[in-house]
Amino acid sequence: MATLEIRGATLLTMAEDAEPTPDGLIAVDDGLITYAGASAGYVRRSEPDEILEAGGCVALPGLVNAHTHCAMTLLRGFADDMDLKPWLEEMVWPTEMKLTEEDVYWGVMLGSVEMLRAGVTCFNDMYHHAEAGTRAAIDAGIRACPSGVLLGFLPTAEAMLARALEFTAGLAKQAHPRIHPMLGPHAPYTCPDHLLRRVVEGAAAQGIAIHIHVAETKHEVDESIAEHGCTPVERLDRLGLFEVPVNAAHCVWLSDQDIELLAERRVGVVHCPGSNMKLASGVCPVPKLLARGVIVGLGTDGAASNNNLDLLEEARLAALVHKLHDLDPKVLNAPQALALATRGSAQALGLGGMIGTLEVGKRADVAIVDLSAPHLAPGHHVVSDLVYAARASDVVHTVVDGVVVMRDRKMTHVDEEEIIREVRERGRRLAGP
Amino acid sequence: MATLEIRGATLLTMAEDAEPTPDGLIAVDDGLITYAGASAGYVRRSEPDEILEAGGCVALPGLVNAHTHCAMTLLRGFADDMDLKPWLEEMVWPTEMKLTEEDVYWGVMLGSVEMLRAGVTCFNDMYHHAEAGTRAAIDAGIRACPSGVLLGFLPTAEAMLARALEFTAGLAKQAHPRIHPMLGPHAPYTCPDHLLRRVVEGAAAQGIAIHIHVAETKHEVDESIAEHGCTPVERLDRLGLFEVPVNAAHCVWLSDQDIELLAERRVGVVHCPGSNMKLASGVCPVPKLLARGVIVGLGTDGAASNNNLDLLEEARLAALVHKLHDLDPKVLNAPQALALATRGSAQALGLGGMIGTLEVGKRADVAIVDLSAPHLAPGHHVVSDLVYAARASDVVHTVVDGVVVMRDRKMTHVDEEEIIREVRERGRRLAGP
Repeated sequence: MATLEIRGATLLTMAEDAEPTPDGLIAVDDGLITYAGASAGYVRRSEPDEILEAGGCVALPGLVNAHTHCAMTLLRGFADDMDLKPWLEEMVWPTEMKLTEEDVYWGVMLGSVEMLRAGVTCFNDMYHHAEAGTRAAIDAGIRACPSGVLLGFLPTAEAMLARALEFTAGLAKQAHPRIHPMLGPHAPYTCPDHLLRRVVEGAAAQGIAIHIHVAETKHEVDESIAEHGCTPVERLDRLGLFEVPVNAAHCVWLSDQDIELLAERRVGVVHCPGSNMKLASGVCPVPKLLARGVIVGLGTDGAASNNNLDLLEEARLAALVHKLHDLDPKVLNAPQALALATRGSAQALGLGGMIGTLEVGKRADVAIVDLSAPHLAPGHHVVSDLVYAARASDVVHTVVDGVVVMRDRKMTHVDEEEIIREVRERGRRLAGP
Repeated sequence: MATLEIRGATLLTMAEDAEPTPDGLIAVDDGLITYAGASAGYVRRSEPDEILEAGGCVALPGLVNAHTHCAMTLLRGFADDMDLKPWLEEMVWPTEMKLTEEDVYWGVMLGSVEMLRAGVTCFNDMYHHAEAGTRAAIDAGIRACPSGVLLGFLPTAEAMLARALEFTAGLAKQAHPRIHPMLGPHAPYTCPDHLLRRVVEGAAAQGIAIHIHVAETKHEVDESIAEHGCTPVERLDRLGLFEVPVNAAHCVWLSDQDIELLAERRVGVVHCPGSNMKLASGVCPVPKLLARGVIVGLGTDGAASNNNLDLLEEARLAALVHKLHDLDPKVLNAPQALALATRGSAQALGLGGMIGTLEVGKRADVAIVDLSAPHLAPGHHVVSDLVYAARASDVVHTVVDGVVVMRDRKMTHVDEEEIIREVRERGRRLAGP
């Protein structure tokens, strides 16, 4: 039962309407938050096993990257500034055919280190070789929701689903405290009705959630209407998908009726502004979704379409892009943007009872950000500074499930140089003929 | 005649169509680049006074922040997510009334350190107390184009202009190698015709450029048409402004006729995507401007509307926002975005012959970026990695005018802690009653 105290930081619990607490203290026992409040109010019963001195810092809930394809770090910068179709068909997919399990392991190791360095303590991963990716997440000390990826149009789709169900059932049995498996049908347009129905059955039987891309491009919506007579969201609803917990990535092109459905069915929408800008997909109507009470989280998407896994940058992009899109500087203010990256993402993944805020009884996933850099002075408002001025490199300590995985900007659990060396070698091989 | 060699970095000279040179070498003599190419091709005549070992890094021209109000670092995060009018009238302007010369000195010191840390070696500054700001830029070791700011609607406008002309004339006499003064009439809508004509006369007489905000908001353009019967760009042209070199910040709302004028008159447009998004001003038509041959640079605007002075982030925002705006992922690719931040900005400031590329005969302003971080692996394409994945904290050495002002992420010339302490104290005072 290891105990940890984080001392002296300004506390941003990210609980609804909570104000920053100066000189705060977070106490952790066996991974659980047992106190989060003013230092002055804390009654210490015994010295903790470990202490993080965090004066001059702000402590906030670990950021939650609610949609990524983590091992795509291997393809970072491999192909950019291209139309979606040739990008996928000529560059990404042929290269992904070459991926081995070990490639995915090292790609996820790299992505995990990159995220932990950026204060991201949990990620929702849809990708091939999910076993290897899960092994990497466990080794890296990060929290993950692995789902594999079901490409329903492949002749092997049935076998993929069987294997996915075996994978999630195995993980459920293992009950690793940081691994929360899901099922990952790729998208409505890549999965036939019967497969999606089977996915719902599997998810219901195992009591797990579904991770899926939805309405990322206008083309997808137009095609769905032509082919199925309804939008992708309506189709998923008709197929019963929303009877189980669903997190729906992108949701760029939504009708008002879609928004009603997403609200009523408590679907978690994952906004990916960086990817949606880079691939020119469009703008997810986040202000409208929030106004209607839809759960909205934030994701980076894969590093091939971003090109990093920096969720603080994503929060900034969210705040900026909606102001521009609505031509209103009051839209999606800094506290709202930071809520998307923490509480919102946790809720979108169905983990809102476990992480996403710093509250007693939740797991201790914490990002501690050093405020001493010149670009954060003079320090008028800490939330504004985090969203509009801070960068991932300001994160100084990262805690996952009560374990200090980064201390003083040094990873405590993994050999970072080995990981980078492996990824460079594998990246070279993948880029080759 | 101090000599410097930067050894082993991949070289991005940013000369038109130049490819990256692996294992490059930059030789500097008395601030001037005497060699920039492959290490293998360099003939060393004598050992240099100073060496920067830069293996595993990329060396590129120091970034040029072509529009900012540097001392507004003091107001970073002071007021965000507000409509432009109350933001300016209730928050920014009343606070600026309290600014002393020493406030501006320390605000510019902080902004300079923030920029040097981010690989920004030159900035174009329009702000009050320009003498103090210039003193800070000189002390910080950065290159600057100070202009002061002429608010033509004030009763003191004539006195301000006289003082500005005295200021620029004084600097011309001083001929500091890193200080390039300009005249700074705030904007067409804040300056009457007769004042703008006097500014042109002054600039022509002294052989200097004009720095001005142009067509930042739709309201400004509508008002200009109502009041003057023409757009702001047309009005400035009629007043003879474009007879002298002009850098025009923002240029968000332009007619096709405006774009023709900007191209013909060789006006340097300064794109400020972060500020234009945050204040919900709109999108400067950069792809159209580039297609027409207009000179385009990149700026952060002030830290009160950004909220940092990170030009690499600005290059990323530029690449992203135009893809989204045109719904075309091929628009403003990574090399173009990086060109805006270097060559483009230098040209927009009329300094294209002196800085903006790493070429023999130019001043040695160099940013050296460490590529060893996880978020830059595996390293498929260095320009993509810089624009889409890198962050300011990856800059490891910064050279201005041949002087190493940051080495191994440590400032060599200034006491950073003192600067931050001063800015925090002054920030608190300014935020007070």
